[in-house]
Amino acid sequence: MFKKVLIANRGEIAVRVIRTCKALGITTIGVYSEADADAPHVKLADEAYLIGGSRVAESYLNINKILEVARGTGAEAIHPGYGLLSENAEFARRCEEAGLIFIGPSPKVISKMGSKIESRKVMEEAGVPVVPGITYPLSDAEEAVEVADRIGYPVMLKASAGGGGIGMQVVQNGDEIRKAFAGNQKRATDFFGDGSMYIEKFVANPRHVEIQILADGFGNTVYLWERECSIQRRHQKVVEEAPSSFITEETRAKMGEAAVKAAKSIGYKNAGTIEFLVDEEQNFYFLEMNTRLQVEHPVTEEITGLDLVEQQLQIAAGKPLNFSQGEVKREGHAIEVRIYAEDPKTFFPSPGKITKLELPNGPGVRHELAIHGQSVVTPFYDPMIAKLVIKGSTRKEAINRLQTALADYHIEGIKTNIPMLQEVVAHPAFHSGDTTTDFVSKYLKTNKTNKVK
Amino acid sequence: MFKKVLIANRGEIAVRVIRTCKALGITTIGVYSEADADAPHVKLADEAYLIGGSRVAESYLNINKILEVARGTGAEAIHPGYGLLSENAEFARRCEEAGLIFIGPSPKVISKMGSKIESRKVMEEAGVPVVPGITYPLSDAEEAVEVADRIGYPVMLKASAGGGGIGMQVVQNGDEIRKAFAGNQKRATDFFGDGSMYIEKFVANPRHVEIQILADGFGNTVYLWERECSIQRRHQKVVEEAPSSFITEETRAKMGEAAVKAAKSIGYKNAGTIEFLVDEEQNFYFLEMNTRLQVEHPVTEEITGLDLVEQQLQIAAGKPLNFSQGEVKREGHAIEVRIYAEDPKTFFPSPGKITKLELPNGPGVRHELAIHGQSVVTPFYDPMIAKLVIKGSTRKEAINRLQTALADYHIEGIKTNIPMLQEVVAHPAFHSGDTTTDFVSKYLKTNKTNKVK
Repeated sequence: MFKKVLIANRGEIAVRVIRTCKALGITTIGVYSEADADAPHVKLADEAYLIGGSRVAESYLNINKILEVARGTGAEAIHPGYGLLSENAEFARRCEEAGLIFIGPSPKVISKMGSKIESRKVMEEAGVPVVPGITYPLSDAEEAVEVADRIGYPVMLKASAGGGGIGMQVVQNGDEIRKAFAGNQKRATDFFGDGSMYIEKFVANPRHVEIQILADGFGNTVYLWERECSIQRRHQKVVEEAPSSFITEETRAKMGEAAVKAAKSIGYKNAGTIEFLVDEEQNFYFLEMNTRLQVEHPVTEEITGLDLVEQQLQIAAGKPLNFSQGEVKREGHAIEVRIYAEDPKTFFPSPGKITKLELPNGPGVRHELAIHGQSVVTPFYDPMIAKLVIKGSTRKEAINRLQTALADYHIEGIKTNIPMLQEVVAHPAFHSGDTTTDFVSKYLKTNKTNKVK
Repeated sequence: MFKKVLIANRGEIAVRVIRTCKALGITTIGVYSEADADAPHVKLADEAYLIGGSRVAESYLNINKILEVARGTGAEAIHPGYGLLSENAEFARRCEEAGLIFIGPSPKVISKMGSKIESRKVMEEAGVPVVPGITYPLSDAEEAVEVADRIGYPVMLKASAGGGGIGMQVVQNGDEIRKAFAGNQKRATDFFGDGSMYIEKFVANPRHVEIQILADGFGNTVYLWERECSIQRRHQKVVEEAPSSFITEETRAKMGEAAVKAAKSIGYKNAGTIEFLVDEEQNFYFLEMNTRLQVEHPVTEEITGLDLVEQQLQIAAGKPLNFSQGEVKREGHAIEVRIYAEDPKTFFPSPGKITKLELPNGPGVRHELAIHGQSVVTPFYDPMIAKLVIKGSTRKEAINRLQTALADYHIEGIKTNIPMLQEVVAHPAFHSGDTTTDFVSKYLKTNKTNKVK
């Protein structure tokens, strides 16, 4: 195992990685920005080095400076956490060149999976279902009708450069395409200067379900079940759970096998996640692959009993997985909620000094955080300040414990999204497992108030 | 299920019970003393009532006052926690008379198990092994030799009124008894005014292993494996774990079955623990039965996935156990350490105001506590202020995580036993599972320093 590892990240994930390293007897090297001089990850690391100014470009994205610290301290490997440099193929390559082990897949794989079109092609070739559609621009409405007839209605007409729903439309038949095509193309040209139009099958009321995989350097690839992350606000996950209460055992096995096949087809190594959309009939479609640890990895840890950071370190250190697919446990139910320093009404970040912090504890309550009772939350970084991870023997028990824990979660000095989380968790649709990706806009009052404003 | 439950306790166990009640939708009634006006259990309970002065006799042991609150608030049941009134048969009887459900066994059973001699008799009759010996006073040395010849050497000669080792001696044969008897009898008479002498088999290098049982009102009794609690300081448990790394599967099953037999023989109902001494050859002997929840119950919760407070509530509410012996899980390894507000050198209590509290978190870390960053630890109650419960997939992983967690456990303003816990957990004898009941006196420097003083 490594003797010394540099953690190229901050916040809760840096703390998380440091803890596992320490438990394994690995010396930890932290790096920090000016704004983070008093941050918990700096205190917890065995050694910590200032690498630049408060803006991420000056520090946490400063590849040269990070590699300089790694060389100077004799670190053998770098854990990138999530976000920041974690899916930066250039950083992984520079680590390799400097003789350092990047704890993650190869630069080539990171780069391939970072491209929407490329990764879709790879998955299609590997036989993993993707949302049926085309990856080349349509020339006109008639070609769109031809493609749509082939993939089946309803379909989604999409502007290549689209965003915020502009240039997008769900259509039910050829006539609707003929009516809609020119208008959407014009809007896309007007807004983005690019009128390229695509088409893909419309997935109604989808769920976001992702498969965690682990792959070592000896050809062993396993899946660690799924995480259901459908409850999102503006494509930002808010509540994640494992197992999914929606997919069947058959779907679970099929998705797991598809994820393993996909990972194997690209020679994937280390921990990774394949995200899928699942429709009402349990059909699933590849969405994207994340070539790093996910924010929501703890729910998988809770149901499998595995430490994913430890697994990442073992794999990076050249060890084979010490269990087979059949030995991966699945026990109980876990739910994670992300706690953001943000105004619950406006959803704006709410930096400031925490004046009081009282956390729930007890059975089934796990915290991942990098704040304490006197922390200052600065405006420089992602406003996610903590994760609350709840385990129960059943989904019902986990929800009951989560509700109690949220009621006892007291942060003073800054505003948080806890009221919104409480609204999600108290909602009958959440209890019944009716968690499609439009949950927040469909059910939440807080969100509606916000929209009206 | 109950609608309203009164919790007749304080500190971490009151908080623990309140949390499960809340998760089950039960309204919680707290009671508190003057010293506890700002205590967390008061804040967390749905309603809380002042029942008297700071000394326990004036408040937490004040049966009349507690029953008055129960009647006044319409509570249907009382959870006694551990310590205080939890094994007070009179309190259980008074609850019954007042039409309240006491969450625990019947007054008769509490009373029977509260007597050393009576409980030993009950166990012998049920066929549960007890330390071989006699329960009537010996008339002279020759009778002692006769008894010792029958039970086998070495034996322990014991003064009935003995304490602190006075009047106690391990003897290897009849001649040694003849030499030792009169002297020990004289010392016992001198010190305690009672020269009654007993004899029992001497158990060398024993371990303290206890079996958790659950019994409903429908004849179902199950055991939830064991807890090894050998690491004690002056008969006070310090570190507890499950499973025991010492007992074999065969011993585990035998002890479990003996515990169930014992519980059934007395018509036991609710959660209970049967404590045993286990010798080097895996022989086990009944020590005593605790007719309440134990301080160390969380390690059992961690390996079985059960919430023991929930089980207690279900049983008291008249529901049958919803699982069988064969369905009781045993997964991973859990270790609990007790954190005391005490001077690590003198072991004197160290009350005071906490000025800073920073707790470790992350995978496998559970806290049970009733303190926060501004708590005042008063001198009125047991100095145990928190429990740290660590889970790992293996004992090794649990120990690694525990070491990391203890290193990151920061309490300022008061002194704690954390240095002693760190010494235990770092010791090679702990790592190798060599945890006999003399661990602390045999291995710890802190304890030796103390003894020399």
